[in-house]
Amino acid sequence: MKQGIILKGNICYAPENDRLVVRENAYVVCEGKNCRGVYEQIPQAYRTLDVIDCQGGLILPGMIDLHIHAPQFTFSGTGMDYELLDWLNRVAFPEEERYADSGYARQAYGIFAERMKKSATSRAVIFATIHTDASLILMDCMEESGLVSYVGKVNMDRDGSPALTEESAAASAAETRRFIEECIRRGYQKTRPILTPRFVPCCTSELMKMLGEIRREYDLPVQSHLSENPGEVELVRKLEPQAAFYGDAYDRYGLFGREGKTVMAHCVYSVPEEIERMKQNGIWVAHCPSSNMNLTSGIAPVRHYLEQGIRVGLGSDIGGGSSESMFKGVTEAIQNSKLYWRYVDSQAKWLTFAEAFYLATKGGGSFFGKVGSFEDGYAFDAIVLDDSAETYARELSVQDRVEKAFYRELDKTGIAMKFVEGERVL
Amino acid sequence: MKQGIILKGNICYAPENDRLVVRENAYVVCEGKNCRGVYEQIPQAYRTLDVIDCQGGLILPGMIDLHIHAPQFTFSGTGMDYELLDWLNRVAFPEEERYADSGYARQAYGIFAERMKKSATSRAVIFATIHTDASLILMDCMEESGLVSYVGKVNMDRDGSPALTEESAAASAAETRRFIEECIRRGYQKTRPILTPRFVPCCTSELMKMLGEIRREYDLPVQSHLSENPGEVELVRKLEPQAAFYGDAYDRYGLFGREGKTVMAHCVYSVPEEIERMKQNGIWVAHCPSSNMNLTSGIAPVRHYLEQGIRVGLGSDIGGGSSESMFKGVTEAIQNSKLYWRYVDSQAKWLTFAEAFYLATKGGGSFFGKVGSFEDGYAFDAIVLDDSAETYARELSVQDRVEKAFYRELDKTGIAMKFVEGERVL
Repeated sequence: MKQGIILKGNICYAPENDRLVVRENAYVVCEGKNCRGVYEQIPQAYRTLDVIDCQGGLILPGMIDLHIHAPQFTFSGTGMDYELLDWLNRVAFPEEERYADSGYARQAYGIFAERMKKSATSRAVIFATIHTDASLILMDCMEESGLVSYVGKVNMDRDGSPALTEESAAASAAETRRFIEECIRRGYQKTRPILTPRFVPCCTSELMKMLGEIRREYDLPVQSHLSENPGEVELVRKLEPQAAFYGDAYDRYGLFGREGKTVMAHCVYSVPEEIERMKQNGIWVAHCPSSNMNLTSGIAPVRHYLEQGIRVGLGSDIGGGSSESMFKGVTEAIQNSKLYWRYVDSQAKWLTFAEAFYLATKGGGSFFGKVGSFEDGYAFDAIVLDDSAETYARELSVQDRVEKAFYRELDKTGIAMKFVEGERVL
Repeated sequence: MKQGIILKGNICYAPENDRLVVRENAYVVCEGKNCRGVYEQIPQAYRTLDVIDCQGGLILPGMIDLHIHAPQFTFSGTGMDYELLDWLNRVAFPEEERYADSGYARQAYGIFAERMKKSATSRAVIFATIHTDASLILMDCMEESGLVSYVGKVNMDRDGSPALTEESAAASAAETRRFIEECIRRGYQKTRPILTPRFVPCCTSELMKMLGEIRREYDLPVQSHLSENPGEVELVRKLEPQAAFYGDAYDRYGLFGREGKTVMAHCVYSVPEEIERMKQNGIWVAHCPSSNMNLTSGIAPVRHYLEQGIRVGLGSDIGGGSSESMFKGVTEAIQNSKLYWRYVDSQAKWLTFAEAFYLATKGGGSFFGKVGSFEDGYAFDAIVLDDSAETYARELSVQDRVEKAFYRELDKTGIAMKFVEGERVL
């Protein structure tokens, strides 16, 4: 007998960029871990599966958060009066130092994972801190949350605060190996390690080289930051004069796509050569509009990336971003693209709602494989929203209800159900 | 015996721009309709008043929404893929036509007023539609909500949709008189009429002249839109070639401050002569960042206005804005000011949290008089937030909790208590 579940309700997903499919009172079928498509009537082959009637609720793919710093959740939404480099030194680094204490990490990451569980997000790519033990605690917490995630122990062997700078490149690499080996030993089902050089200013070439070797050895994905802020880009130019551009400082050591998948957060100030390399190397861009506003960084040229065929997803970037809400991220991506069109490049048409919805689902989902859509064969990640408290005098189409749910951030007041890889987590 | 109430909790308010006062476990005293200040111990004179212990909750002044379109609440958060003038014709005007039907108005405005009641907003300056009967229904609903508000029957005698263009200037003026007289007759306690020429493109000079006369006759305040979008500014230049600038088209008819108070929404593209006139005439600017992003308008030069001594408050501008949340408005004002600094004028230092908090409280509150602060003699408008569900591993200062409440929009998940002019409405 088939294992699975069928959800009945108002279904919306984006099978391709700028195209929303809306199916009213339809059925989405989950068999095992995978989606088997959306139907007006339950197909014969799936008649034995249980059906959950979502009572007219909205059924959407789970949101994909391509960039979030778990240790920064504690101060998210505070300390917003600084630019990036000041903010790191005054706000972010002092907090991250606390994760040397595993007790603190257990408490903080427990709360973080619980909030992620309750959010609209089904998958996330996560920074921890330099601390291996705390990073493993975060892995444990995320595994328990039911979300699928990549978690990275952070590497920093220069230019952090004293307590947040690892002893040497060799020590950082050794701890990274310990982290990876322990992840393998623990046999997580949903939580995978990812290499996480913090960013070029915090990683020597020696460390980058070692991480490149570890990447090849374990065939791991990579996450980092790229061209977020003019001051940071300038700093990288000075620190790594041999690199042709910021991203080249990763690429020289095999940490910038090509054979291994890589997600780079921000890419606000990527020069044409860098963009070309991102394209060649198959980089994913984690666009983080909230954070880019809060830290006065600017607006990433998302339209240009899409036109170039570069893969783009969204990141909440807590704590530069203030909220784990990806609904908020979707509307902020649209709003930012409108200001970009107005102030930076009138050739760069702003993002439609359908496009931003795609970025938050199938766009970012591609980093995990066939994820972020209700097409046949995609992983079954779904959220159900009960928007019945949002009553209006006029009747709303399902598409209007979906748009309203995002603009009015109904994810904040609760997700009615959530499934990840076919398993119910809420 | 004195009438009043005392709230005990963590109190935060902004008595001046860029200065937050935070008082932990303190008492704020309400006597009659007015605040009598904040104290560590209850003064002898107020010992007979009842004390509500807010259990460590956050006590803030009620938020002031200087610009909101009540009839557009129905579609807020939808139809966001257009620029201003297209959006008016395709989204806003068709919905506003429905308010010719008083039954529809009763239903829609009932829901609107209920949502405003549950929001963090204690006072609002509101657009209705051209329909006098529906506008009076909105007055009834707002009066019942407990909020203090100005409500305007809208004037439009050209260039709306056919169903939304009044027969003539004289007919529009006559309906305005009927609206005002009926407001007087009904004797509202908290709800006052405000003259509301929609904006120059929708009002002939003949109508403006008549409205100027009505304004003087009844000594009414005025609300309208100003220099929101380049296309609109250009349209006004063509329609009113005799006006020196957009705002002059109001000023020629006595609808732009001076003796009567006037609030103008947006002011994104005000030219220097217009800004000078705004200053001379004592105009309030309703800064509406959400709407200005959604309708691709741009970013208003708020820093410049503050430096010029122009009075600025915030507006949600539903339905150009998607949410009635003024907490969201505060953070969007900050985020916008950061992008303005980055892309438009690096001399215009971005807004701090304390500054934006001030705009949403005492800044906008000044349109209503002594409103928006907990200083002695100010109207007692207060909201109490229970942020106890927002737990973090680290201890947060009260100021951090307040900043978090805004950035994480805790107003969306409920206001624990709300007082307006000393009366409890939630």
